[in-house]
Amino acid sequence: MSPPSAAAESTTVWAELRHAEPSDVPFIRRMIYQMAEFERLTHLFSATDTSLLSTLFPSPPLPHFFSFTPLVLYLSSTSPPVPSSQTLSITQFSLSSPVVDPDEADFGSPLGDGRRIAGFVICFPNYSTFLAKPGLYIEDIFVREPWRRMGFGKFMLSSVAKKAAELGMGRVEWCVLDWNVNAIEFYKGMGAEVFQEWRICRLTGPSLEKYKDE
Amino acid sequence: MSPPSAAAESTTVWAELRHAEPSDVPFIRRMIYQMAEFERLTHLFSATDTSLLSTLFPSPPLPHFFSFTPLVLYLSSTSPPVPSSQTLSITQFSLSSPVVDPDEADFGSPLGDGRRIAGFVICFPNYSTFLAKPGLYIEDIFVREPWRRMGFGKFMLSSVAKKAAELGMGRVEWCVLDWNVNAIEFYKGMGAEVFQEWRICRLTGPSLEKYKDE
Repeated sequence: MSPPSAAAESTTVWAELRHAEPSDVPFIRRMIYQMAEFERLTHLFSATDTSLLSTLFPSPPLPHFFSFTPLVLYLSSTSPPVPSSQTLSITQFSLSSPVVDPDEADFGSPLGDGRRIAGFVICFPNYSTFLAKPGLYIEDIFVREPWRRMGFGKFMLSSVAKKAAELGMGRVEWCVLDWNVNAIEFYKGMGAEVFQEWRICRLTGPSLEKYKDE
Repeated sequence: MSPPSAAAESTTVWAELRHAEPSDVPFIRRMIYQMAEFERLTHLFSATDTSLLSTLFPSPPLPHFFSFTPLVLYLSSTSPPVPSSQTLSITQFSLSSPVVDPDEADFGSPLGDGRRIAGFVICFPNYSTFLAKPGLYIEDIFVREPWRRMGFGKFMLSSVAKKAAELGMGRVEWCVLDWNVNAIEFYKGMGAEVFQEWRICRLTGPSLEKYKDE
């Protein structure tokens, strides 16, 4: 019998943040829905695989980071990923114990190679007139529930920020809900400034459609 | 002698919101600086004509509203504008009295045709994952001081919103400072929702550059 205080065996997980392929769209759609549930905004959710596919994978394709850019986080506990032209970043995590993932069947790689999808990022260029430079806006950064608080969010945000800095962009920006104190502390720890004075304004639905008739 | 209660003679001004040309860049740069003064953010201003030109007018050019899109507001009190492929919208204003514009010499049309530049808009596409649709983000909308409170801002925002709706975009969004109560009332009057819960996060300068080394 092992003593009750024995350290749990650590588990190695390889993480790859890679540009999404069209085959990743159903996984992205399910994660967007999970995110809408977390943000209490499911009433605003209307994405379908078809609409995501046509808007995120236009034909002809646009260069990564010069238009809407979806990325997915693939994890593998069996073998390190083989880098490809779609790879943004690869790293290795040592977790204190294996993770129980109740949605494993829904997020397994379509390639049947034991990999699973645990998160995603969608970003696109924005523009600062004060800097006269493009920046990168992160519309979504999401890690599925069983994989949170292990460093995967930090890995994704760091990888994207590194790329933006390498591309000479002046800023990386995103939004957070003011009641999401865990996220705010996490972002501040990453070096981000959180602006208190700015408010987002939006025309949408009938309030936008009415301008068609003007 | 006319009675003291006689209505002042009204002045006609034609307004054209048109896609900017490279020759408009010096005017745009001066207006960005005026905007930075108004927002008390001149310490963040570092745009030059060269940096604006290279980032707003890439070669080869990208289609309007599919990337960074600068628009300028031209006014003429002598003759209606002749629509061109650069024209987004034209309208006619009847002002109660002629406007004294102390910066007229700095904002006269380079074509020497009596037109002047009174405002600008810079916008670009953003993306909503919940809608799986592009939207339009207005980075800046600005009217020079002597021309405010006459409807030019409404004309510019309406014209851009109309175009976004026609392009099938799901939202038009922008930001406002929470102390700018005049702007907030104006935007609400235009049908916009102002979100109180979202906060903008930003990595910039050294906080962004450090990710290059990760």
